[in-house]
Amino acid sequence: MSRKTEKYSVIGKRQPRLDGVFKSTGRSQFTDDVVLPGMLHAKIVRSSIPRGKIVNLDISRAQKLPGVKSVITHKDTGDLMVGPDQMLLRENDVKFFGDEIAAVAAVDEDTACEAVELIKVEYEPMEPLFSVAEAIAGNAPVIHEHSDDNYADDLKMKFGDTDRAFSESEYIRTDKYTVNPMHSCFAEHHIALVDYSLPNKLTVWSPVQVTGFIKMNMSFKFGIPESNIRVMNLNSGGCFCGRASDKAHHYIAAVLSRKTGRPVKIRCTAEEEFLVLRGGGKYNFTFKTGIMKDGTLKVIDADLLLDCGAYMDVQFIVLQFIGHSLQMLYKMDAVKFKGSLVYTNNHPYMFHHGTGMVAMRFALGSHLDLIAEDLGIDPVEIRLKNAVDKKYTTPSKIKYASCGLQECIKKAYRKSGWKKKYGKLPPYRGIGIGCGVINSGGKGMFMHDTSAARVNVEEDGRVSLFTGLPDMGQGSHTAMAMIAAETLGIKTEDITVIAGDTDITPYDVGAIAQRGTFTTGNAVRNACLDARKQIAKTAAGKFGVKPSSLVFRDKKIYPRGAHDQAVTFEDIVYETLHSEEGRYIMGNGFYNPPAEALDGTTYEGNSSLAYSFGAQIAEVEVDPETGMVKLLRVTVAHDVGRAINPMAVEGQIDGQVFSGMGQTMFEECIMENGQVLNPSLLDYKLPRSFEMPEIEHIIVETVDPYGPFGAKEVGQGPIQCTTQAIANAVSNAIGYPIKELPITPERILKAIRQKEKEK
Amino acid sequence: MSRKTEKYSVIGKRQPRLDGVFKSTGRSQFTDDVVLPGMLHAKIVRSSIPRGKIVNLDISRAQKLPGVKSVITHKDTGDLMVGPDQMLLRENDVKFFGDEIAAVAAVDEDTACEAVELIKVEYEPMEPLFSVAEAIAGNAPVIHEHSDDNYADDLKMKFGDTDRAFSESEYIRTDKYTVNPMHSCFAEHHIALVDYSLPNKLTVWSPVQVTGFIKMNMSFKFGIPESNIRVMNLNSGGCFCGRASDKAHHYIAAVLSRKTGRPVKIRCTAEEEFLVLRGGGKYNFTFKTGIMKDGTLKVIDADLLLDCGAYMDVQFIVLQFIGHSLQMLYKMDAVKFKGSLVYTNNHPYMFHHGTGMVAMRFALGSHLDLIAEDLGIDPVEIRLKNAVDKKYTTPSKIKYASCGLQECIKKAYRKSGWKKKYGKLPPYRGIGIGCGVINSGGKGMFMHDTSAARVNVEEDGRVSLFTGLPDMGQGSHTAMAMIAAETLGIKTEDITVIAGDTDITPYDVGAIAQRGTFTTGNAVRNACLDARKQIAKTAAGKFGVKPSSLVFRDKKIYPRGAHDQAVTFEDIVYETLHSEEGRYIMGNGFYNPPAEALDGTTYEGNSSLAYSFGAQIAEVEVDPETGMVKLLRVTVAHDVGRAINPMAVEGQIDGQVFSGMGQTMFEECIMENGQVLNPSLLDYKLPRSFEMPEIEHIIVETVDPYGPFGAKEVGQGPIQCTTQAIANAVSNAIGYPIKELPITPERILKAIRQKEKEK
Repeated sequence: MSRKTEKYSVIGKRQPRLDGVFKSTGRSQFTDDVVLPGMLHAKIVRSSIPRGKIVNLDISRAQKLPGVKSVITHKDTGDLMVGPDQMLLRENDVKFFGDEIAAVAAVDEDTACEAVELIKVEYEPMEPLFSVAEAIAGNAPVIHEHSDDNYADDLKMKFGDTDRAFSESEYIRTDKYTVNPMHSCFAEHHIALVDYSLPNKLTVWSPVQVTGFIKMNMSFKFGIPESNIRVMNLNSGGCFCGRASDKAHHYIAAVLSRKTGRPVKIRCTAEEEFLVLRGGGKYNFTFKTGIMKDGTLKVIDADLLLDCGAYMDVQFIVLQFIGHSLQMLYKMDAVKFKGSLVYTNNHPYMFHHGTGMVAMRFALGSHLDLIAEDLGIDPVEIRLKNAVDKKYTTPSKIKYASCGLQECIKKAYRKSGWKKKYGKLPPYRGIGIGCGVINSGGKGMFMHDTSAARVNVEEDGRVSLFTGLPDMGQGSHTAMAMIAAETLGIKTEDITVIAGDTDITPYDVGAIAQRGTFTTGNAVRNACLDARKQIAKTAAGKFGVKPSSLVFRDKKIYPRGAHDQAVTFEDIVYETLHSEEGRYIMGNGFYNPPAEALDGTTYEGNSSLAYSFGAQIAEVEVDPETGMVKLLRVTVAHDVGRAINPMAVEGQIDGQVFSGMGQTMFEECIMENGQVLNPSLLDYKLPRSFEMPEIEHIIVETVDPYGPFGAKEVGQGPIQCTTQAIANAVSNAIGYPIKELPITPERILKAIRQKEKEK
Repeated sequence: MSRKTEKYSVIGKRQPRLDGVFKSTGRSQFTDDVVLPGMLHAKIVRSSIPRGKIVNLDISRAQKLPGVKSVITHKDTGDLMVGPDQMLLRENDVKFFGDEIAAVAAVDEDTACEAVELIKVEYEPMEPLFSVAEAIAGNAPVIHEHSDDNYADDLKMKFGDTDRAFSESEYIRTDKYTVNPMHSCFAEHHIALVDYSLPNKLTVWSPVQVTGFIKMNMSFKFGIPESNIRVMNLNSGGCFCGRASDKAHHYIAAVLSRKTGRPVKIRCTAEEEFLVLRGGGKYNFTFKTGIMKDGTLKVIDADLLLDCGAYMDVQFIVLQFIGHSLQMLYKMDAVKFKGSLVYTNNHPYMFHHGTGMVAMRFALGSHLDLIAEDLGIDPVEIRLKNAVDKKYTTPSKIKYASCGLQECIKKAYRKSGWKKKYGKLPPYRGIGIGCGVINSGGKGMFMHDTSAARVNVEEDGRVSLFTGLPDMGQGSHTAMAMIAAETLGIKTEDITVIAGDTDITPYDVGAIAQRGTFTTGNAVRNACLDARKQIAKTAAGKFGVKPSSLVFRDKKIYPRGAHDQAVTFEDIVYETLHSEEGRYIMGNGFYNPPAEALDGTTYEGNSSLAYSFGAQIAEVEVDPETGMVKLLRVTVAHDVGRAINPMAVEGQIDGQVFSGMGQTMFEECIMENGQVLNPSLLDYKLPRSFEMPEIEHIIVETVDPYGPFGAKEVGQGPIQCTTQAIANAVSNAIGYPIKELPITPERILKAIRQKEKEK
């Protein structure tokens, strides 16, 4: 047992998830398990063409169908907006294949489906635009009146003197990369059950990551106080940033509930999933990098054209994430970024696992490998040489209180046997490296990034922990329980986590931006310290010592150095309640990282307090006849600050390698005329479990000074490294650069042929 | 507007119940509204004879009935006890008509009923005992092996030197009184839904007043930690002390749930209601009182023989309540009490609205009127002369921090026009007075009497108040919201009360012993003061003043005397959360009245911190032909300390006058051979709404120094006065003493005839 693990009795131990047995026996409650008396089922009428005028809309037959309780159209919802540029239901035109036109609530799902079939929409088709290139061509038709060039928005960032840095560079290289639309393919489809039967109380059951957004937006749009909106975010089958906020189906269910006076459930079909989730769009990157001959990076100028589909959603945030991330991993003098969002008549895009940064990391990582090759430097060496460290401040003024990047690179390098393999593998075997960095929460969404937590200590010494942080499957509630248990000196199993109901849990910004362990973890720790103080009061009196000299460990309390006097935690708690004072122990805590808000103009500032780093090395084998790639092994080194639960850290790593592997090798929404041609798990190719590579886990613990017990994120950090590592390994295997994701067999064969042609 | 109401902006205002609209529109959720997936329905097989041996029990046909999932008998439950002397299911014998023998869980209620019919029990009848007299006769059969004289328990109390007090008395009178078994007739039948499908987690949905008892007892009996037991006490249709604790149906549902792995619901039928509720038993009082000729009370010696039915439950507590109450209302030198509990083969008795004290108050109040008549003293005068006051300490060392008894008597006297009426009414019109006293919570059940409360202050300035105090219909949650609103300077409507789920709410002893407003009210106030301090920190900084100089009122905050600078409560709260600190406001509070624990041997001590007092004057008209009584008018003066919500105080008074009227004039479980002959609302006579008298409400506010804003109970105080007042009025009307409740027309005609005979 190392000194580190001895220090704690809970933290750092392998802990199976508290909800594991419930999940695996089907006892965990998901939204679809909730059945309310009188509940109706709703279905949405969607556009069957990608662009056109609505000439006629006839709902009369549907209204007459027995069992139909309400049919709503634009007449009912008016100018109710569901995004910055999207009306909830369309009035005069449709802009994508799937655009919401009407909705039906009926006594059961079959009746609702039948009613949808009875609604007749007549269109006058208009010329659609399916690519960014078409959309920004000079004479293209205009998709939204407010944008005559089809540009939806753009973001320009510049940190440092890029002109000077380029002029000082000894070598400059430019590459272009493409990442095709992908989808996160949640285990649980999008779903909402809404009860808005009373005019001033709205309850939403739905898997969501940020309940605050739903409350804020619904409050604003329906004109009822935020506190009268209750969000029940039960278990969720994956989120991957795709369930951060309110979507059309939430509003449609709400409007139907208000009209019928009944709760209304909407369950999205597999096909709808691809319309509702709005996975990542099509990315077109151009990277221009200046560098010294010895491999010292000077400057990056990156350009991104992003197809955002028919409507805007949160795509602007994607640009922000990418712009900042460009200069967070390697030291450089300056960086410039221009990101443009372009409307098309594809379905609206949004987030995808890794939130856009993964696409950028693939491009930049591949680009860096080409530069290294040009300069005759080992890909590991060029990364190590430029890797940021604890003393470094980035051009945008980001600082690192802890930084394990170099350690990650070195450990992955050693463990993977890179030295013996790179350039020495048999033909069509390849090895590649990828690195990544990501924040652990921080300011951005609000002026604050607050999490609050509460504990009730029951008289039998068990503790209820109230948190507004959702657990979307990553095991964050178990991590919170471990932090609570360690702080109170009890066992993880003694903690019951209570979550999933905004009427009951204290404020929490939510499960986004990798903030859970770091920010909510700190709040939980503070709440438990508050409770511990109250318990210590009783114990200190009993032992006749100062509270500060008490040890809380293994369900016992004793004065430091006097373990033989130990009294059980339970007994002290019982005594506290059954005292003359009758003190019931309740602890409160909150945490708002004292980070800077970003400057609104320059985007400079250190808006997060902690950042985690990683390096991954992948080995692949390519079949030159079929173009099939076999991912053999991935060595993952990730700096998590402190592994609260090593088992869960490994689980998070495995899940992200899996997802990164899918994004690199398999996943693509095949688009044709604005339609997803493969909208189901039969046709949309996810990796299967037997395709998982051997994974070597290297947990790097830099013990962050701000994190709870030193912990940082392991939320979307590892996946930042995976796509690059695999793509670089494939390039290394076939000896030709890969510049488009996913690397399908077709694209690999094309690259092999191209290489032969160029010889 | 009086000075008192000006002081507060919420307290003392008439406030409709927050849940009123939900109750009246059928939206409030009761246990029977909860339907769980896979839920089974259970029915109980009960003894069809009052006493006998079980010769054979055949469940085989029931087990084979399609839809039956489990049949349990004593073989499954073994020695699992449901009371001190009662096994959950009977093995060899039955002791009352209705004794639990077996139970069935089936897919629906009809199937369960059918299965119950298929279960054959063969008995060998034994000689039953239906009266206390039979049971304590020397040669009576023994009902329980552990008691060869059929005495279940007894309690002796003696405060002061009774021998000396009697010897000093100038006049001594003895009377005997009988109160027949009654039932509280809840609007909601007894019901339990239990999910014990996992071995270490038990969830009980059931209307209960003291969730802690259920958790404690089930934890002990099933051997699972208390914290793993969740009690969902949703709305309840009346409790009246009859739902304080766990009962057989809770355990039967739990055992069936454990066996079937499914949630199990048991709904009691109207007939079962009388077996499950266990209303008040049959009371036989003997009062011997010593007094001076001027009306100065010296001493009471009271004896009670109480039929407790076939098993013991909480009847011992009834004896304790009665023993203490004897000397709490009037000054006297000494008091002696002996209460004996006797087993019979009637169904087990327990509590009834007023918890036994109402029976005693009827007896003592009637007895006192006879003494007054003997001495030629006005009934009001004799009460006023002996009424306790603030400076008084009772023989058992009870002290009154506030006491409005004399004020209540005087005000009721004046308002009722007693002086013009007493002795001056036409024949068969009568007037009578009754007085009462009751504690507002206190120690007894546990070493503590703690309530805890929590508040979350949301960013829109609305507040969630978490309390473990159930609202059984009395409006206590609205009172808690008013206390919270006044403390925080906001409106009652800004508070959402969250209750009814022990996993979520903080500790609270529960809704018993009239502790809600006083004890939980103080906890709520403390929680809100804690939150207010946190809000004041922001406001004080903003105004540049000390926190103590801030005024919180009408949703505004301002420095004292500077109303023009007022900022809204909401803005300050928003600012607090959206600050650099990101402070989310959560307030905790608890309250355990610093009262003495009773001495375990002498029963002396001041175990409650507050007591409320009342006086009621009733006017009746008796029809000498039919014996029917018409209750014309009741003047109610009640010392509530401070009326938090005068509308609710009046509601509580009305409800108790209604119930007291029922107990005096109508209600009786007509027993024959151990069976209730009238077990339904068709036959068990409750007063109907048109029979309600005119009620004059006089709220006396003594402003208790310990109560929240000076408030005390109005829980079961008023009913202590009602039965005596009405009975005395009837005696006054017919000119003959009433010594048995209820005063049915038959008993009145008998009394009138007796009077004529004695002339």
